[in-house]
Amino acid sequence: MTAREAAALLRGWDQILILTHRRPDGDTLGCALALRALLEQAGKTAWLLPNREATALFTPYLEGAFAPSSFAPQHVVAVDIASPSLFPENALPYRDRVELLIDHHPSNEGFGRHNWVEPDKAACGEIIYELVEELGTLTPRIALPLYVAISTDTGCFQYSNTSPNTHRVAARLMETGIDAFAVNKRHFRTKSFKRLRLEGMLAAEMELFQEGTVAIAAVTLDMMASLDAHEEDAEDIAAFAGQVEGVETAVTIRELKPGECKLSVRTSGGLNATKVCALLGGGGHAAAAGCTVTGSVDDAKAAILDAIRQVQARSK
Amino acid sequence: MTAREAAALLRGWDQILILTHRRPDGDTLGCALALRALLEQAGKTAWLLPNREATALFTPYLEGAFAPSSFAPQHVVAVDIASPSLFPENALPYRDRVELLIDHHPSNEGFGRHNWVEPDKAACGEIIYELVEELGTLTPRIALPLYVAISTDTGCFQYSNTSPNTHRVAARLMETGIDAFAVNKRHFRTKSFKRLRLEGMLAAEMELFQEGTVAIAAVTLDMMASLDAHEEDAEDIAAFAGQVEGVETAVTIRELKPGECKLSVRTSGGLNATKVCALLGGGGHAAAAGCTVTGSVDDAKAAILDAIRQVQARSK
Repeated sequence: MTAREAAALLRGWDQILILTHRRPDGDTLGCALALRALLEQAGKTAWLLPNREATALFTPYLEGAFAPSSFAPQHVVAVDIASPSLFPENALPYRDRVELLIDHHPSNEGFGRHNWVEPDKAACGEIIYELVEELGTLTPRIALPLYVAISTDTGCFQYSNTSPNTHRVAARLMETGIDAFAVNKRHFRTKSFKRLRLEGMLAAEMELFQEGTVAIAAVTLDMMASLDAHEEDAEDIAAFAGQVEGVETAVTIRELKPGECKLSVRTSGGLNATKVCALLGGGGHAAAAGCTVTGSVDDAKAAILDAIRQVQARSK
Repeated sequence: MTAREAAALLRGWDQILILTHRRPDGDTLGCALALRALLEQAGKTAWLLPNREATALFTPYLEGAFAPSSFAPQHVVAVDIASPSLFPENALPYRDRVELLIDHHPSNEGFGRHNWVEPDKAACGEIIYELVEELGTLTPRIALPLYVAISTDTGCFQYSNTSPNTHRVAARLMETGIDAFAVNKRHFRTKSFKRLRLEGMLAAEMELFQEGTVAIAAVTLDMMASLDAHEEDAEDIAAFAGQVEGVETAVTIRELKPGECKLSVRTSGGLNATKVCALLGGGGHAAAAGCTVTGSVDDAKAAILDAIRQVQARSK
């Protein structure tokens, strides 16, 4: 499906509901907001289905964007949703009503009547940008959420998914005069005090093995309790240990409850993380995998170190 | 001066020496390396004047780029150097021999015979890119150091100096197939273990005041000693405290020696950092200023809190 075809569809519609995915990120919310602004620019009524899992980080963008309970949509669009299994609870009634599905995940299940999936795009926001070119005019109200979508899905242009096109779209968005700096500060240069303290504890307790190439950091229940930290303070904490200079294998242990630990393994030095985690009943990707271990944090530490050594020994 | 004029100059030259500034960053080194590659592409001999202050972070890029001691330059170019006061020691003999000065600092003193200064560019790398367009062909050998220049000078496209042009140039550089991801990981997602531990200590000891809008963090001599940390582990540590959610005024105290502290004040909430530091004999910019205080860390803390309150009271 092309931008032109998608635009033609949308031109004929009105009273449009836009769905976002569970645990919504900047890409799904940004795309939905930009699409809503674009459709309103075209004189249509469009709303986002309320997503209760949207965190405070996105609150300022979402003001007034969620559909009132009285809204009876005639058409349903889903953005950045790879599978109906990622539908929030309140989106389930629309399971078979998605007429246009716009996404960039290679794993997209194509559950819409029309599916516009471009897996080479770093963010779904890059696809919505093409729609803007086709259907309307780029304004700050459209550009700002698209910048949020693209910057957050690429770690502010740092991840390997970032392409020349990502930068070109960012350039066009910035030309509308949006305050990209404020977005960057909010999403990439701000941490909760609890998060910072938690990282501080992790740094203090982190252990290095194998000449500093393996790092193991544990987030214990005690740590979380002593900081009165919440789930959002620990979000994506698995990326923390991997930033240590020289570390190729970073293990983050999360104590779920006494006697049960979740482990996350990130590798950058060629060790297959899936093979390591498979030994402990887990799985994932070659560079990022996970597993759950019964036992204390120390048990988990011993088990994963042993698993790492086994996989290393085999590949010699 | 235009790119065309600069290219015309360089076309007529050979045996070219390229100067970089003291405490060299990614922009000055990246520009010098890209310019050298561009000149070599044009069949010329070009070398960087050895810069002994270049840190290990840049070692991989610099291999074989420094002039042998036997090199007798016929022409001298300076990149990203705002003032001769920023010349490394060994560049001083070339003080009056800079024929072409390429820079983006608004404060540039125009000390070259020909001065090409574009203060609207986020990085000097954006200016060198224009020269490439004029003088040669963009290759990975030119594009990689230019990407280093541009990404490091913009905090990977996060700082307020980032413009649409910055992104457009980045897009072109990436199209040559360079491994931008590896550069990003090296410069933005890697920290020394000591740095991480130091940040951890800062997070643990940091104090918040005025309902969490003022943060004060102290890097003591004890901390540095207990970690066996070096100057490079504490580089740009003044940015750390400012990332705490809700903090508008971030003070970082650096204990220089017993009884003497250097203070750095960063503000994002409108408080004038220069006015605060001026009360303690310092100065700087509205959003980033500094001063030196005689006394202990606690003395410095009390003094700066008092200065902040005084400036706040006056502006009411």
